[in-house]
Amino acid sequence: MKPSYSLNSRIWISSNENETFLGQGRIDLLKEIKTHGSISKAAKAMNMSYKKAWALVDSMNRLGPEPIVVSKNGGKKGGGSEVSQYGDKLILAFDELIEEHRSFLSYKMKELAL
Amino acid sequence: MKPSYSLNSRIWISSNENETFLGQGRIDLLKEIKTHGSISKAAKAMNMSYKKAWALVDSMNRLGPEPIVVSKNGGKKGGGSEVSQYGDKLILAFDELIEEHRSFLSYKMKELAL
Repeated sequence: MKPSYSLNSRIWISSNENETFLGQGRIDLLKEIKTHGSISKAAKAMNMSYKKAWALVDSMNRLGPEPIVVSKNGGKKGGGSEVSQYGDKLILAFDELIEEHRSFLSYKMKELAL
Repeated sequence: MKPSYSLNSRIWISSNENETFLGQGRIDLLKEIKTHGSISKAAKAMNMSYKKAWALVDSMNRLGPEPIVVSKNGGKKGGGSEVSQYGDKLILAFDELIEEHRSFLSYKMKELAL
């Protein structure tokens, strides 16, 4: 049997102190927050603990040049969370990056002729 | 202070069963084998155990479509190891891949305008 090969990669953006700022998991979380309008519902949808989701959001907000997840106006109990316009831009940019990166890799894989 | 960001990535080639076939560490090992003409000397140069280096070589030879590290003709005690012509081709191809990938990422990073 002829072996088959695949070219794999992982991409992430880190900030100053080598802390992860954005990666696929964080982008997925932002998308779920957009869908559900709340960090806890987003966490549930991803089978992630609220604590973990909150820590990821906190890290993005802390490391980003602008707020990425913001509180929605609401009553005393708060109105959930939403992704800022800037966060939307990041989601789009990251998705595009991943897609172009995928094309790049599949092109390179052909060149490797493995 | 304006935060600064960097785009990071890891690339590797896996085979059939999702086993790693080639990655930066394995390519580095092949280069050391070329330099030193022996797996054990290459391992020493990389501060890696002989057992680990041998396992990596064995994995590459097992998963590759052609032998990558071969025994040199030698006396009873063997004459060390060398990288096959095919292995040389892989080293070149991987180095090129990494370099082009780096240009791709730095170009993308400018686009992200982070």
